[in-house]
Amino acid sequence: MSTTTTEKQAIKGGEFLIRETTANEIFIPEEFNEEQRMIQQQCKDFLAKEVWPRLDEIDSMKDPKLMPSILDKAGELGLLGTSVPAELGGFGMDFNTTMLVAEVIGAGHSVAVALSAHTGIGTLPILYYGNEEQKQKYIPKLATGEWKAAYCLTEPDSGSDANSGKTKATLTPDGKHYVINGQKMWITNGGFADIYVVFAKIDNDKNLSAFIVEKTFGGVTMNEEEKKMGIKGSSTRQIFFNDCKVPVENLLSERENGFKIAVNILNIGRIKLGIAALGGSKHTVTLATKYANERKQFGVPLASFGAIKYKLAEMVTKIFASESAHYRASQNIDDAYNAFIAAGLDSSKARLKSLEDFAIECAILKVHGSEVLDYVTDEGVQIYGGMGFSAEGPMDRAYRDARINRIFEGTNEINRLLTIDMLLKRAMKGSIDLMNPAMAVQKDLLSIPDFGASEEEGIFVKEKKALANLKKAGLMIAGAAVQKFMMKLSDEQEIIMNLADILIEAYIAESVLLRVEKLISLKGEAAVEIQKEMAIIYLHYAVSKAASAGREAISSFAEGDEQRLMLMGLKRFTKIDAYNLKEARRKVAKHVIEKGEYPF
Amino acid sequence: MSTTTTEKQAIKGGEFLIRETTANEIFIPEEFNEEQRMIQQQCKDFLAKEVWPRLDEIDSMKDPKLMPSILDKAGELGLLGTSVPAELGGFGMDFNTTMLVAEVIGAGHSVAVALSAHTGIGTLPILYYGNEEQKQKYIPKLATGEWKAAYCLTEPDSGSDANSGKTKATLTPDGKHYVINGQKMWITNGGFADIYVVFAKIDNDKNLSAFIVEKTFGGVTMNEEEKKMGIKGSSTRQIFFNDCKVPVENLLSERENGFKIAVNILNIGRIKLGIAALGGSKHTVTLATKYANERKQFGVPLASFGAIKYKLAEMVTKIFASESAHYRASQNIDDAYNAFIAAGLDSSKARLKSLEDFAIECAILKVHGSEVLDYVTDEGVQIYGGMGFSAEGPMDRAYRDARINRIFEGTNEINRLLTIDMLLKRAMKGSIDLMNPAMAVQKDLLSIPDFGASEEEGIFVKEKKALANLKKAGLMIAGAAVQKFMMKLSDEQEIIMNLADILIEAYIAESVLLRVEKLISLKGEAAVEIQKEMAIIYLHYAVSKAASAGREAISSFAEGDEQRLMLMGLKRFTKIDAYNLKEARRKVAKHVIEKGEYPF
Repeated sequence: MSTTTTEKQAIKGGEFLIRETTANEIFIPEEFNEEQRMIQQQCKDFLAKEVWPRLDEIDSMKDPKLMPSILDKAGELGLLGTSVPAELGGFGMDFNTTMLVAEVIGAGHSVAVALSAHTGIGTLPILYYGNEEQKQKYIPKLATGEWKAAYCLTEPDSGSDANSGKTKATLTPDGKHYVINGQKMWITNGGFADIYVVFAKIDNDKNLSAFIVEKTFGGVTMNEEEKKMGIKGSSTRQIFFNDCKVPVENLLSERENGFKIAVNILNIGRIKLGIAALGGSKHTVTLATKYANERKQFGVPLASFGAIKYKLAEMVTKIFASESAHYRASQNIDDAYNAFIAAGLDSSKARLKSLEDFAIECAILKVHGSEVLDYVTDEGVQIYGGMGFSAEGPMDRAYRDARINRIFEGTNEINRLLTIDMLLKRAMKGSIDLMNPAMAVQKDLLSIPDFGASEEEGIFVKEKKALANLKKAGLMIAGAAVQKFMMKLSDEQEIIMNLADILIEAYIAESVLLRVEKLISLKGEAAVEIQKEMAIIYLHYAVSKAASAGREAISSFAEGDEQRLMLMGLKRFTKIDAYNLKEARRKVAKHVIEKGEYPF
Repeated sequence: MSTTTTEKQAIKGGEFLIRETTANEIFIPEEFNEEQRMIQQQCKDFLAKEVWPRLDEIDSMKDPKLMPSILDKAGELGLLGTSVPAELGGFGMDFNTTMLVAEVIGAGHSVAVALSAHTGIGTLPILYYGNEEQKQKYIPKLATGEWKAAYCLTEPDSGSDANSGKTKATLTPDGKHYVINGQKMWITNGGFADIYVVFAKIDNDKNLSAFIVEKTFGGVTMNEEEKKMGIKGSSTRQIFFNDCKVPVENLLSERENGFKIAVNILNIGRIKLGIAALGGSKHTVTLATKYANERKQFGVPLASFGAIKYKLAEMVTKIFASESAHYRASQNIDDAYNAFIAAGLDSSKARLKSLEDFAIECAILKVHGSEVLDYVTDEGVQIYGGMGFSAEGPMDRAYRDARINRIFEGTNEINRLLTIDMLLKRAMKGSIDLMNPAMAVQKDLLSIPDFGASEEEGIFVKEKKALANLKKAGLMIAGAAVQKFMMKLSDEQEIIMNLADILIEAYIAESVLLRVEKLISLKGEAAVEIQKEMAIIYLHYAVSKAASAGREAISSFAEGDEQRLMLMGLKRFTKIDAYNLKEARRKVAKHVIEKGEYPF
């Protein structure tokens, strides 16, 4: 879905907190075209045929060739080359379409992890940072799956603190090779990968460099498969590099540029992880709905109980809201890419810069998508009851496999810290004007609140007012916290977490409101009644979460009159009209139960 | 810990919502005596010696004799006879002490499940409902572990709806035997039990009857071990009764009394499950604290980060609060038991009636304890990061094993419904006066709120006012919901869930406030500064949860002026002074980190 309006190209990452976005500016998943729907269906067929019938076999790891053979089939279907340009043997899809692929494949359990590690962190560093020779040599074979890739960053003592890795690379006296020594950990696809993207420090460099290492270079050994809570079919190894000789031409990008590569590739990894988590969530809802419709207790299906309706409605609402934000962001990324291309950048640089621009959104979506998945799988287990705890039912695997998503690609704690860190850095660089709006809110605090009924007409007038206020609450607290702590704010992680929660909820709530507004303009209000209920349910959740996070933050750094004023402001900014959420959820649940699956 | 004050004997189950309890009325764990501490230490030693070093072996199930042999060792140490009177070969401990045992053993993973199934639902139906011959025949051997017991209630189509079971018992023509036919599911200890307590319907009875079945009676077959998400070392079988001939003298209690037995035994099971979950939680905190102290990232231990301090403080605070409520209730149960004994009841009846009296608290504690455990193990995984997902670390097992606790002994949904159902039934029977206080609150709503500063002096004056208000919020909403829906309230499970949440939080918050108040009176304020912070942290959590549950409930059934009035009332009743929770949590975390383990 390419877009050409200059209005859309003007959207900057992280800006949503201070910018009012209109419904026609965002892309919504209902706008995917025929071709994209065909790709989506192809991915579903792949899972139904190659993956879901073999989940036990895959997880047993008895046949170490099974996972690579499934990746080969994915390769035959073109699923490994979605992000790769046609001239390098791929399909050159736009980012938004690759997200759609990632979403569907996200329901593939261990296969989803293997596939996304290969196509994402395995392939993209070479695609985006490789020189022409490197790309020509590696990318076509990675795009078909003839070669499989792994990404070697984490080490036993270096997880969240990635740049502290101890793996070393030293130049040979003849200047022709780097000799790599070190130990890498939690390497997805480690057991069968042909190509490793390895991060190591050259000599005593402060920052990492990145290398393309072929297994055949020698000096690569590995431990047995790691035993894990979940994604048991995903190969996870410790990999040792013992005097592994890598030709100098396999240095990726420039010396000491590795940490930047890692960070930038993680941006993509994060938003892709988020959408994959939603794919898993949708599949889980479908299974749980079927079970709730079939399983009877007290003479009636589980689905007829209010407590179960509540769960189904909440599961679906959270997914729908999160999905709205994911595709909004991915289209923003595509639009930014097109703008960079129009400005003369090459494709790789344009991709990287467009993702970097939306790094705040990527971190938000990683956190939100993975937490929706954990919520959904947890409720899935609960709906299944005893069968939810049985390894014979599907919820056991769903629950265990889900849990890694809050840990890898940066723990959700790290990602929450990053959202605020990046936002404040942009504010300081002047690329986002945070302080003027924040000061305007503080002025607003001293004015007499407007309790009159709004005279505006249109869809979601009250809700948009509530959303605007939610943003004001975030700005008020962020502004005051920055003024109070200045550079020391990083020592106040608890407050940053509170701010991150407000930021996240503002983004998701806005996205679902805008999606439904656009849907109404496209299909009319009567056709999207359920979606409208979901937008309102989510908004209430977001406001309530922001109110509680805001209160904690304010109480933690403001005192006396300032505290009183801010708490009053928070109360005003998180005021929202009562709404019969029980009835709203019952409407949503009724629709889900009638469809017998995730219905959107 | 027996007590003799008539004041304490007067406490009735479920009454806490309308009764102001004083600190000296409750028992606190700090009051356990020397002997009880020795028993506690003995249990810890048992886990450290027999269980923790063999968790992998136990979970592998390779040696089917391992678990029974560990139970034998527990039997040798007297751990299987804690609830059994001395005259039947046990130790006749009071209920409170058996809770202490259950708490420590709760950290024993699958062994905890096996042991508690044997001593609880396996043994107690016979102990409490058996006639003299039955008790003499079975209890001494169960108390030593010579015979091991299992409880056969659940069936494939009969889980939460236990009384709908299809297993049949028919009298033989000679009147000497019942012939049992049917299929039971999720039978803990099924693989090795010698004795089954089996629930079945005689002929076309409406209600279940209970039977003591010896494996040697014949006609008992079973499926392979169930594959489960967790507690993999706990034997879980489907058991089939095929023309199993049971002597008529093995009918337990009276015909059609089985459902009542099941329900009453579950009361004990619930509070014991709650406290066992807290034992598991404490052990998890200890492991997570050690890891956070050892593991370094960015050059410093994880424990030095605010985000990790937050987690440790929240984990410990929730455990401490929940524990306060558990031992408060278990002492109430002991006191009620003593009163029933003094009134001339026999021991079994006194036990059953005392537990039945506190059935509301038992359901509350099952829900709260199991949810604290899930919270704590989830954060444990997150603190461990990648190692949290590794099966080589302890968090994987902790997380998987924890999950069953929200499902068995009645799902937490069923238990939430039960708390309110039982409360309203007692109100209707007149044993708890709910409606007068509820109406008083409604009157209160129309009065002018008292915004003046309280002139009372003493500990927790403000906090107790907040707690009293929290209860008022619950009464206001419960009263209005009952008036509105009358008998149809049971169709409004969502509202009942909201009410249950308020009820649960009121009980836990009150318990921790009273515990700390008593501690202050015993040790002085300076000695329990950390505990004081935890009580306040928990109270804020409880009020915030009640405010949000209350708002949802009110919006879901009240309209117009009534809604406005109630929402205003709710705001008033959930008003609480701002408190610097970040600093409070840092104090708690500092203490935990310094001690390097769960410190209370």
